[in-house]
Amino acid sequence: MRVIGIDPGLRACGWGIIDVDGPRQRHVANGTCRPTGTDMGDRLLSLHQLLTAVLVDHAPDAAAVEQTFVNRDGAGSLKLGQARGIAVLVPAQAGLTVGEYAPNAVKKTVVGVGHADKKQIDHMVRMQLPGCNPDSPDAADALAIAICHAIHLQSSGRLVAAMQS
Amino acid sequence: MRVIGIDPGLRACGWGIIDVDGPRQRHVANGTCRPTGTDMGDRLLSLHQLLTAVLVDHAPDAAAVEQTFVNRDGAGSLKLGQARGIAVLVPAQAGLTVGEYAPNAVKKTVVGVGHADKKQIDHMVRMQLPGCNPDSPDAADALAIAICHAIHLQSSGRLVAAMQS
Repeated sequence: MRVIGIDPGLRACGWGIIDVDGPRQRHVANGTCRPTGTDMGDRLLSLHQLLTAVLVDHAPDAAAVEQTFVNRDGAGSLKLGQARGIAVLVPAQAGLTVGEYAPNAVKKTVVGVGHADKKQIDHMVRMQLPGCNPDSPDAADALAIAICHAIHLQSSGRLVAAMQS
Repeated sequence: MRVIGIDPGLRACGWGIIDVDGPRQRHVANGTCRPTGTDMGDRLLSLHQLLTAVLVDHAPDAAAVEQTFVNRDGAGSLKLGQARGIAVLVPAQAGLTVGEYAPNAVKKTVVGVGHADKKQIDHMVRMQLPGCNPDSPDAADALAIAICHAIHLQSSGRLVAAMQS
């Protein structure tokens, strides 16, 4: 089963794909979409095209998107929300159910603590997926989201069900 | 020239379309997209499909989306942001440049004051577009956005340029 994780963003949107076979996880690919364009319409269109190309290239069976951090800055949340809307839409358009995980839940699952920093995430992702070299901190986050989703699907028995279907 | 205005929302997304010929504006259609689905992926996918159908049916030449209200509730802004991402993406996918107006700017242009309530907007939209019967307050807002965009395009001379192209 192939799982994609997405870390949404308007400037840099990380993605990471792993193959899962029982307890084994293998790195497939990772990267960073960097939308172009000056106005919001162009940037969202660019993000949609870049992410769609990733889905078409790698044909994942499951997807998860990080729940973006909500702070006191409403304008920032709104902008990030727009990027997140695209990041959730693209796998939904490919017929996938989209899992959602808070950043702390991802860190707790992958690193063991909810307050891990980017360095720790990068380290654990490389440990967990030998040979993987994350393209950016966003791509490392995305791989962590994919690992987290695979573990949750497995522990809930949904991985087996999905693989048998 | 045909202009669509969109008032984004995850539960109710209003849309309104007008035809513009010099200073004259004529109502074409309006409605409210009500996305279905339980998880975010399904709802955003549903919103994307409903809005895309409106664009295909009416083939507007210009589009504008209301800049959603940013409040202290970061989680609410984030959710609304996701709906707004789809509302901006759909006309961009149709090749349109997407105008953006703050709610107060729309009210000031259409009603004359920035603090107009929904009743006043509904009234002015009906006055401005004889025979129009807004489907919902969101659809009335969307028609107000279309009127506002048409006026701004015209005053900036871009309407003439767009009509000649």
